[in-house]
Amino acid sequence: MSLPDEHPPGLMAALMDGLRRLPGVGAKSAQRMAYHLLQHDREGALQLGRALEAAVMGMRHCERCHTFTEAAVCSTCLDAARDPRLLCVVESPADQAALERTGSYRGLYFVLMGKLSPLDGIGASDIGLPLLIERASDPALREVIIATNFTAEGEVTAHVIGETLRSRGLRVTRLARGVPIGSELEYVDLGTIAHALSDRR
Amino acid sequence: MSLPDEHPPGLMAALMDGLRRLPGVGAKSAQRMAYHLLQHDREGALQLGRALEAAVMGMRHCERCHTFTEAAVCSTCLDAARDPRLLCVVESPADQAALERTGSYRGLYFVLMGKLSPLDGIGASDIGLPLLIERASDPALREVIIATNFTAEGEVTAHVIGETLRSRGLRVTRLARGVPIGSELEYVDLGTIAHALSDRR
Ligand SMILES: [Zn+2]
Ligand SMILES: [Zn+2]
Repeated sequence: MSLPDEHPPGLMAALMDGLRRLPGVGAKSAQRMAYHLLQHDREGALQLGRALEAAVMGMRHCERCHTFTEAAVCSTCLDAARDPRLLCVVESPADQAALERTGSYRGLYFVLMGKLSPLDGIGASDIGLPLLIERASDPALREVIIATNFTAEGEVTAHVIGETLRSRGLRVTRLARGVPIGSELEYVDLGTIAHALSDRR
Repeated sequence: MSLPDEHPPGLMAALMDGLRRLPGVGAKSAQRMAYHLLQHDREGALQLGRALEAAVMGMRHCERCHTFTEAAVCSTCLDAARDPRLLCVVESPADQAALERTGSYRGLYFVLMGKLSPLDGIGASDIGLPLLIERASDPALREVIIATNFTAEGEVTAHVIGETLRSRGLRVTRLARGVPIGSELEYVDLGTIAHALSDRR
């Protein structure tokens, strides 16, 4: 005799399924996480549950730079102290944060929220290229600095964006290759990023 | 000029904080998970959020065996086909599942939901020892098989439980040491577990 609610799809199974939606979390990790939360950190579980719902409901994309924001336009885009003549294109908010930490850049950003990856079905519209083209029509803009990662997909993305914007008469530069080939910007030391930024071509 | 809702404690910061409550998840992983969910799997984020709340609200400890259950008493404890003369003490539901998979055991279980670890402040009541003593007073019971892990903490836990129950006149056995020293039951192959079970001393 077994009660049906003791077996999948019970609450525990649903919780493990939910945890497996997280990148890098397999069945074993999901089980360990579920037991840990229920046994040792129920307040943490509720906090995470509330944070997930609030973030899904409240976070959207900035109308100007495509990054995550709670308002229509993010605070960086609204920052009057930034140089509106420079637009730096990055793959992710984490890459933007890495550039910000160098203190070497005071222009604006465009965040692709991804990179071109035809094999994974990620095309131009998935990385906000139409929005970027619109954004790049801003007459104040003098230069677009492409700071996608120096990986194969990052380089392809940089190439496609560069061709697209140059064909519209824009000056397009790329971070200098001081950044080691094959590495991801987010993990590169600040000095290297700062150097690559001043050395852009 | 920066909008306050763009910075911690914003929705994104709250989400990353929530994800860091998960065991094994650091700042970098939390950030990657948060971006992934918001960019690629908002439905998954909502599903996880709902599952967390439902599990916290709906999961409790079985009144007889201390494992997680949605009912007052779990389906295993209610299973009339099981031998009420045998009680196997394990550290976790995962360990119980490992024993079940061997198909060699048809008795009942007691799940400690942890192990004694004085350095971490985990004492007898945290592993349900008072409930185990009460459970072990069942006159139908003939033998308690201790199947805690063969780690330092698992052995200490086995020793304390063994002493406690033997002092109450119970027959207490331990899984045979066919299980390799230093390993965790959950990861041991079925044959080894089955052998250790039949060879218990
Ligand atoms: Zn923006
Ligand atoms: Zn039970």
